[in-house]
Amino acid sequence: MFYLLEIIGTMAFAMSGALTAMNKKLDPFGVFIIAFVTAVGGGTLRDIMIGRTPVGWMLELNYVYIIVIGFILAILFRKKLDQLRTSLLLFDAVGLGVFTIIGLEKGILVGLNPIICVALGTITACFGGVIRDILCGEIPVIFRKEIYATLCIFGGIVFFLLRHLQFDNDILYLVTSVFIISFRLMAVKFKWYLPTVENK
Amino acid sequence: MFYLLEIIGTMAFAMSGALTAMNKKLDPFGVFIIAFVTAVGGGTLRDIMIGRTPVGWMLELNYVYIIVIGFILAILFRKKLDQLRTSLLLFDAVGLGVFTIIGLEKGILVGLNPIICVALGTITACFGGVIRDILCGEIPVIFRKEIYATLCIFGGIVFFLLRHLQFDNDILYLVTSVFIISFRLMAVKFKWYLPTVENK
Amino acid sequence: MFYLLEIIGTMAFAMSGALTAMNKKLDPFGVFIIAFVTAVGGGTLRDIMIGRTPVGWMLELNYVYIIVIGFILAILFRKKLDQLRTSLLLFDAVGLGVFTIIGLEKGILVGLNPIICVALGTITACFGGVIRDILCGEIPVIFRKEIYATLCIFGGIVFFLLRHLQFDNDILYLVTSVFIISFRLMAVKFKWYLPTVENK
Repeated sequence: MFYLLEIIGTMAFAMSGALTAMNKKLDPFGVFIIAFVTAVGGGTLRDIMIGRTPVGWMLELNYVYIIVIGFILAILFRKKLDQLRTSLLLFDAVGLGVFTIIGLEKGILVGLNPIICVALGTITACFGGVIRDILCGEIPVIFRKEIYATLCIFGGIVFFLLRHLQFDNDILYLVTSVFIISFRLMAVKFKWYLPTVENK
Repeated sequence: MFYLLEIIGTMAFAMSGALTAMNKKLDPFGVFIIAFVTAVGGGTLRDIMIGRTPVGWMLELNYVYIIVIGFILAILFRKKLDQLRTSLLLFDAVGLGVFTIIGLEKGILVGLNPIICVALGTITACFGGVIRDILCGEIPVIFRKEIYATLCIFGGIVFFLLRHLQFDNDILYLVTSVFIISFRLMAVKFKWYLPTVENK
Repeated sequence: MFYLLEIIGTMAFAMSGALTAMNKKLDPFGVFIIAFVTAVGGGTLRDIMIGRTPVGWMLELNYVYIIVIGFILAILFRKKLDQLRTSLLLFDAVGLGVFTIIGLEKGILVGLNPIICVALGTITACFGGVIRDILCGEIPVIFRKEIYATLCIFGGIVFFLLRHLQFDNDILYLVTSVFIISFRLMAVKFKWYLPTVENK
């Protein structure tokens, strides 16, 4: 079940990368690389920083296949992606929840402090998108107003609270991911944005 | 003493990141991430490249706390940061000196050639700012005209000259950091800039 | 022979970095860093991702010397680089071929799947240029239309086909590099470009 959600999330991230790249009128190779980096960038950065190398996707080819499929789907349905916007946002929210949990777990595995684990969860879920935006010449959207990474941080706090109360892993995963996914969907639906901070 | 200077430097870097991010009208999360990355980015890149993982700030939570404090101070005093400009530049110069020495020492610890150690000192002190500028959609200011990284390189040369002459570590640290800090402050005060190189 | 080609490629990459940086009117330090990063960036990213640290150029100072020479040549002949354009493109194509093979070999050494090895070859040859463009505030040229990374991918496929047929390493290297270099030169000469993918 969790693995299925991970596949959905990976594909959604790849498609969001492909979409951003097509908006920038890149060539097919550029679209593919941006799809790839969006999907695995967060996990790669996490693995590099905790010293888990070769990084995840190099040892688990399934990621590569899923991204290729996501890339092909994005190219084929590129004229219709606007109509599929709602599904894409849903899948993306799933990715956000699942990737945060994966990052949290990797941090626990290496024996890091909960605060650092929350940082790793956030990096895993969000930094693929950050690298995507940088490669496309944009200031990362999650730094501007989007309620996105903030949810990973709060999701991580929920996770460690429940863990402290010794709930089962299943409960931990379920509650944390439902928390992140549902708040993300509400943020999109009700157009919740973070205010900007200005110093002038 | 050195540790106190490191705290000052870390906080100054975090505040410089927050300031740049607020100039770009980012949201609070974006401001925090940019503050964080500016403060730890150089050391993170260094640690990753020499294989010292998990990277420094994951094992030493004090960095995280200092950055959080720097971030809160920057938000609270955001309207007054212009008046605090001089103090910030002083603290930033302290960070430049201290971080260069930390980078040099890590390189020596891994047994690398002095040339590479100088590169590591420069990366430690300067690349947080490079990543800050990239994330904010700017060409890094230290590549454009600022006399900044050049001082880390010369500071590193001074360091290894004195080390070759078998001076104490205390003397090494003192002379190198005073060298970098004082030249940096003079560069700011007397508006020394590097010329640009044009090929047209 | 292969080592000589590697030197040519490294120098060509350093000069292409210096050239891009000078077009952006950076200062000498900025030009040097961009030259450096263009030459070693791809290999550094590869080494970091497979956990081969300290990364290559830290242990092999010859790279540093070659880049310094390339940087000095680029500065000295900066007014004449346009006339040297053809030589530079030739050298750059050599770098593309040689760096791809180095990346492929490193992947095999770590025991990775051929698909991942091809990715590593492509990263080694192309991502120095990607980082160069990002640092200069541009969307990477190889994502836009240039037939460049695509050749590394096809070159990698040729490499593994021949390897599967148990050809000698010498033959592998020769055919793969000639394949990449000649197609790259033809792409430049006949102005072959990849089409862009648009979704509107």
